[in-house]
Amino acid sequence: MNTLQVKKKLQEFFLEDIGEGDLTSSTLFSENDWAEGRLIAKQKGVFCGVDVLGEGYRLLDDRFEITPFIKDGDPIEEGQLLALVKGPVQALLTGERVILNLIQRMSGVATLTKIAVDTVNSEHTRICDTRKTTPGLRMFEKYAVTCGGGFNHRLGLYDGVMIKDNHIAHTGSITNAVCQVKEKLGHMVKILVETEKREQVEEAVQAGADVIMFDNRSPEEIKEFIKLVPESIMTEASGGITLSNLAEYGKTGVDYISLGMLTHSAVSLDISLNISGGMKDERIGSFST
Amino acid sequence: MNTLQVKKKLQEFFLEDIGEGDLTSSTLFSENDWAEGRLIAKQKGVFCGVDVLGEGYRLLDDRFEITPFIKDGDPIEEGQLLALVKGPVQALLTGERVILNLIQRMSGVATLTKIAVDTVNSEHTRICDTRKTTPGLRMFEKYAVTCGGGFNHRLGLYDGVMIKDNHIAHTGSITNAVCQVKEKLGHMVKILVETEKREQVEEAVQAGADVIMFDNRSPEEIKEFIKLVPESIMTEASGGITLSNLAEYGKTGVDYISLGMLTHSAVSLDISLNISGGMKDERIGSFST
Amino acid sequence: MNTLQVKKKLQEFFLEDIGEGDLTSSTLFSENDWAEGRLIAKQKGVFCGVDVLGEGYRLLDDRFEITPFIKDGDPIEEGQLLALVKGPVQALLTGERVILNLIQRMSGVATLTKIAVDTVNSEHTRICDTRKTTPGLRMFEKYAVTCGGGFNHRLGLYDGVMIKDNHIAHTGSITNAVCQVKEKLGHMVKILVETEKREQVEEAVQAGADVIMFDNRSPEEIKEFIKLVPESIMTEASGGITLSNLAEYGKTGVDYISLGMLTHSAVSLDISLNISGGMKDERIGSFST
Amino acid sequence: MNTLQVKKKLQEFFLEDIGEGDLTSSTLFSENDWAEGRLIAKQKGVFCGVDVLGEGYRLLDDRFEITPFIKDGDPIEEGQLLALVKGPVQALLTGERVILNLIQRMSGVATLTKIAVDTVNSEHTRICDTRKTTPGLRMFEKYAVTCGGGFNHRLGLYDGVMIKDNHIAHTGSITNAVCQVKEKLGHMVKILVETEKREQVEEAVQAGADVIMFDNRSPEEIKEFIKLVPESIMTEASGGITLSNLAEYGKTGVDYISLGMLTHSAVSLDISLNISGGMKDERIGSFST
Amino acid sequence: MNTLQVKKKLQEFFLEDIGEGDLTSSTLFSENDWAEGRLIAKQKGVFCGVDVLGEGYRLLDDRFEITPFIKDGDPIEEGQLLALVKGPVQALLTGERVILNLIQRMSGVATLTKIAVDTVNSEHTRICDTRKTTPGLRMFEKYAVTCGGGFNHRLGLYDGVMIKDNHIAHTGSITNAVCQVKEKLGHMVKILVETEKREQVEEAVQAGADVIMFDNRSPEEIKEFIKLVPESIMTEASGGITLSNLAEYGKTGVDYISLGMLTHSAVSLDISLNISGGMKDERIGSFST
Amino acid sequence: MNTLQVKKKLQEFFLEDIGEGDLTSSTLFSENDWAEGRLIAKQKGVFCGVDVLGEGYRLLDDRFEITPFIKDGDPIEEGQLLALVKGPVQALLTGERVILNLIQRMSGVATLTKIAVDTVNSEHTRICDTRKTTPGLRMFEKYAVTCGGGFNHRLGLYDGVMIKDNHIAHTGSITNAVCQVKEKLGHMVKILVETEKREQVEEAVQAGADVIMFDNRSPEEIKEFIKLVPESIMTEASGGITLSNLAEYGKTGVDYISLGMLTHSAVSLDISLNISGGMKDERIGSFST
Repeated sequence: MNTLQVKKKLQEFFLEDIGEGDLTSSTLFSENDWAEGRLIAKQKGVFCGVDVLGEGYRLLDDRFEITPFIKDGDPIEEGQLLALVKGPVQALLTGERVILNLIQRMSGVATLTKIAVDTVNSEHTRICDTRKTTPGLRMFEKYAVTCGGGFNHRLGLYDGVMIKDNHIAHTGSITNAVCQVKEKLGHMVKILVETEKREQVEEAVQAGADVIMFDNRSPEEIKEFIKLVPESIMTEASGGITLSNLAEYGKTGVDYISLGMLTHSAVSLDISLNISGGMKDERIGSFST
Repeated sequence: MNTLQVKKKLQEFFLEDIGEGDLTSSTLFSENDWAEGRLIAKQKGVFCGVDVLGEGYRLLDDRFEITPFIKDGDPIEEGQLLALVKGPVQALLTGERVILNLIQRMSGVATLTKIAVDTVNSEHTRICDTRKTTPGLRMFEKYAVTCGGGFNHRLGLYDGVMIKDNHIAHTGSITNAVCQVKEKLGHMVKILVETEKREQVEEAVQAGADVIMFDNRSPEEIKEFIKLVPESIMTEASGGITLSNLAEYGKTGVDYISLGMLTHSAVSLDISLNISGGMKDERIGSFST
Repeated sequence: MNTLQVKKKLQEFFLEDIGEGDLTSSTLFSENDWAEGRLIAKQKGVFCGVDVLGEGYRLLDDRFEITPFIKDGDPIEEGQLLALVKGPVQALLTGERVILNLIQRMSGVATLTKIAVDTVNSEHTRICDTRKTTPGLRMFEKYAVTCGGGFNHRLGLYDGVMIKDNHIAHTGSITNAVCQVKEKLGHMVKILVETEKREQVEEAVQAGADVIMFDNRSPEEIKEFIKLVPESIMTEASGGITLSNLAEYGKTGVDYISLGMLTHSAVSLDISLNISGGMKDERIGSFST
Repeated sequence: MNTLQVKKKLQEFFLEDIGEGDLTSSTLFSENDWAEGRLIAKQKGVFCGVDVLGEGYRLLDDRFEITPFIKDGDPIEEGQLLALVKGPVQALLTGERVILNLIQRMSGVATLTKIAVDTVNSEHTRICDTRKTTPGLRMFEKYAVTCGGGFNHRLGLYDGVMIKDNHIAHTGSITNAVCQVKEKLGHMVKILVETEKREQVEEAVQAGADVIMFDNRSPEEIKEFIKLVPESIMTEASGGITLSNLAEYGKTGVDYISLGMLTHSAVSLDISLNISGGMKDERIGSFST
Repeated sequence: MNTLQVKKKLQEFFLEDIGEGDLTSSTLFSENDWAEGRLIAKQKGVFCGVDVLGEGYRLLDDRFEITPFIKDGDPIEEGQLLALVKGPVQALLTGERVILNLIQRMSGVATLTKIAVDTVNSEHTRICDTRKTTPGLRMFEKYAVTCGGGFNHRLGLYDGVMIKDNHIAHTGSITNAVCQVKEKLGHMVKILVETEKREQVEEAVQAGADVIMFDNRSPEEIKEFIKLVPESIMTEASGGITLSNLAEYGKTGVDYISLGMLTHSAVSLDISLNISGGMKDERIGSFST
Repeated sequence: MNTLQVKKKLQEFFLEDIGEGDLTSSTLFSENDWAEGRLIAKQKGVFCGVDVLGEGYRLLDDRFEITPFIKDGDPIEEGQLLALVKGPVQALLTGERVILNLIQRMSGVATLTKIAVDTVNSEHTRICDTRKTTPGLRMFEKYAVTCGGGFNHRLGLYDGVMIKDNHIAHTGSITNAVCQVKEKLGHMVKILVETEKREQVEEAVQAGADVIMFDNRSPEEIKEFIKLVPESIMTEASGGITLSNLAEYGKTGVDYISLGMLTHSAVSLDISLNISGGMKDERIGSFST
């Protein structure tokens, strides 16, 4: 992740939640009350978001000390202590929800990706994401997919070509579409062609696609189609693939399986921040210098 | 929703996906190729996001004509035609994914809320959300909750007081905490107190809380606790409530049940945009005037 | 105040004044000339803006040392030394005007609020602000009101309901309006109803308003109206109240008196920054290490 | 004013007030209820802000029709109808406060400026503003000063040089300071020198200042000092000038009198928006087409 | 180009030049004086920037009528009329410089690219750009390169992998570096390897690079190196290539020649806007209705 | 330069290049690999951009140590070591291109300005820039002009008046135009009048222009025109002046010669960053603590 982007986004997210101020904490705590938060897994899964914890709290107050015990991509167990956060209790509580919301979502995506990777259980076939991400969170979610053992498809409309049915219909044929793209775009852009039929696969191979996607095809069809594709061209299965049929697709030998659900159907992983202290006396005991 | 905010967010989301440009569509279509998109439900649920469709496409090109056949909060069936979108095929494809990602998420939240409302099935007890929303999407998700028949809890840290265990521990007692808040904050702010024990409920009533939340209590406990609360004070159940025990909680007579899952565990509702046309001849036939 | 918001606003305000650069100071001073500024009250009043001084100068140069001798809300006397600021003279002069403009305005609001609070001179009746704040400065001005001993009304259109004459006219009655609001909005939102007549007050009480405002009523009318309102409902007087009749209103027993003038008619409190040093030799004497 | 800047600022101001949405109006009105607002002067003064009214409402909804009956700088009387605004009642109420807050402040500045201009009552001597403006509103307030018959001093630190006591002390003399500036800055920058003594005035004339300011001098001193200044150099009186001694300063023959109070001590001019209609039936009568 | 991005950038550029307002035009023209501007080429070259002209002026005032007589990429001659712009003279003059600055720079890049393309004069070898673009203008300059007949290299650090000497040194070998990239990144990312020696070329081929760049090699070396590269792998020459030796490089049979100079050494093409009218009477004659 | 503006712009430029992340460096280096970069001149010229180097790298990672050996405006020789940069190799490579692109452009402008200054070779006549700068980079380029020994003309449309042919035509005469400006604008604004004929020069002198520009005049004409202008009014030659005729113009005795080419025709000065290390072992040797 681009750290400048991470900070910019966190600032935006804090402004959304805090607005003109945290009515409760700013009323009940003084600026110098300190406390300690323990980040605890409430559920088994894959963790993602160490930088969100660190950059997030330091954005609110540069006196925070963050001590992580895990790193992104690590498997975590229910009850596991993930990190310690020491700092002003007011900022600790003010920042808690935004930071947890983001870490929980990222860990949810990483966990679902890990499940998919384990389900496909293949040395060869890789799991990848799509552009079906939460608006505004693409960088975070794409990163989480890699932490769960998955791979990133193109990031957006700007970094790769995908020729779909509408494009093919409009230009007249896969050949025409690929040609037009090759005439206009340079050598650093990959070209993926969506196919549904044997003839389309053959045409895409001839046209010089870099990646051939089999769209909404059964595992059987894919096994057949792959035979038409030389090894130098990547293959991808997409559409209608769920955790229940994923293993079947993994056996087809396809190079990549793209799953929109990694991001559009991930739910948050339960992680909480237990805050102790926040008592002036305790603080004097443990944080005074 | 604040329309100025909707437009500002949509612009940000489009910039995330489009970046320096849509390599595929800008290469294969000319600016004057037109097409028609049919927004179709692929799943049963509750729709949410008419304005996202309209404002979104008009932001990309002010020549779009959008004809919605449903309104926010309407139940939709698999296969139902939800709206027609006519306009330049290039922008139609460029904007498709961002608009669908947002509408699908909003509809997912609305649908899950509707399920919760139907499950609690009560004239009296209302379902409400929490601050466990996706960072950056709070306005959209809170709105979606209302479209599903739910209600909004406070929007952020700035528009309501919630006195939780850390606040109570730090100030010494619920009474102290409520008093301090009342001494410092004005008459337009509601004060909610989290309680776990009978004595805390009694103390919160005495202290003059506006809302008393029963945190992680069983339906039985809640039934007992409610008896301690006069009708003029609102009650809320929160924590550990799922679709399977929700009906039980509904029978306690509590005023509100807050559910983090409405937003942190909603998955996207499947909705797609089927684009036909995109051929110059067709367009002349159907869109010329 | 939300510190992230304070910093963001200060950056915006500095860019407004400095633009492409401070022609005078950047031409006449070198980056390493140091000086000391003494923040001095030129007028009696209430101070507000310690964070603006600190965050403001540190935004320009992180080498500044700021030593405040007062805190927000403190009464100050003409000639009083309020704070010392040591740092590079170039940034000291470049930032001076923006920081003073903001502190002077905040202190002006705090001072006027204090005068109002002293004028009403009541154990019971509180002074509060309105939304008649300077565009872009709401957070600063609302905070200044609290520093002067006043209270905040709702922050904006998003955190409280105010049912005014147009709303009542449109929905047909106070009862209808309050009902519609209660049907659609959750339990964390306070509902205020504006009333002008005895029947409206009675209707608002019946409808279950949280706050009843007496709009443009005389102290005598308010005394009568208050009798109709149970203690659990807050009362507010608003409209046509000035420093000359404020004491009269205070005697009515109303809970809150809202005064637009706290913000729309406050003038800046005179505070200046006296800068000594700025001579290279002096600096070597006092700041070298 | 720069229209792009006006729109950008208005958007920012609306977001401040509306936040996630206008709870009251969006709950009680439908999007198609229309009404008419009459902008009425509640106080005698000088009007300023026609563009704020127009651009502001059109930003919220492009269906608004605005009919102004005055233009910026016009004198207005109590009770005078200033403009008509027809449009959706929801947006009419949502935007009312921000637009009025800004117009009232601008008109307040214009009115105070007009009073100063009338007080100095001179064919020769002009009234001008300073940089003591409200942070974030400089463009609006500087424009309002011109609408009241005043003139603008430099806009910020970037568009003119002012050599003050600290600059003189640091560079050793007025001559040195002016020389350094002339050596480094080009021919489009005016140089103003602050003076307090006869010798300084003489030195500033010799050094080639474009403008000589008499800082905190009595009218008598200024009359003497002016004799030392050739006609080609502009003179300015500044500091300690109020409405009560302004006429005296006007008689000195000085070219400009700068008054911080035009902006730091202006209060809002009372202007209100009376909204009628808002009833569906009425609308059908008056707005249907 | 992404139109939303174009508009956002143009707004930023206008704010930079106009600031608080155009002192000259806003003082001398009224808002309703109209005029006509004729965009004229003062130099032979390739035009680029039709959208900048249209979107730019419409951003300032939506009443502008723009009639272009050329399209992006067209060759233009000295003295040629490129477009007509009719609209308010105030906005016409206010926007002139920013719009010309951008169009002139884009046309300068397009023209230099065309010269490079004509110089290499090859059916096979393509000219492409680099990341040596003007900060903030990458989208505009990359687009201009395509208008001059060139191709785009990767857009930024996010949409393609380039393994350079530092990466190779750090990972130990080209093979290691390519392997690590392939292990971590997905199938939509192209991998380019910089090579300087025969052994590196061979290693890069073995490792499975998508593109092999010959860095600072002579035409003779490149001819030799190309023989080592199978046709399915693209080749690129880079470094030390100028207009004088470009033809030599073109004869090597390399697929792409990347030239930093297309953007870092392009100068503006001379284009001007001749404004006639600006007289009220004339306007009535030609623009009324 | 305004440091807040420098940082804001650098952030924007980094986001443009890095986007969602640096695919190559983030894949191949760990966060704790360190290296050293040597900034080397590849070409003779004038350096400009020390702050860009320092602020730029510190924005990416606050652990960078930057040691410059030159300051802005210094002449540099081919091969000269300009600065050392020690820090994390990942950020070193990620930031390299943006920082170099900006420094190279600034140094290119400074170098071309120095050439112009040397060419005119006059004690009296100064070289200045125009508004023909790269959109978004005006502050940087105007600063670079001063580093090359040139002077800044007005910064934008907001800080100086230039009365050109269209303004004169519209108001009827130079006298009218100057009068209108003097009636409306204050004493801190300089007024420049463009002239082409003897009568215009005389009229501009009479009207009280601060600066008289001779537009597209020959050196001979300028020598004649200057005789008509008293010493207190500045003169400027502009239009059609190139390096080849610049010396001739310098002999006319004109005060300023403005050259659009300083910014619109400057090319980047070749400067590179040689990175050594990036090996873990080396780092342990040189950076460990």
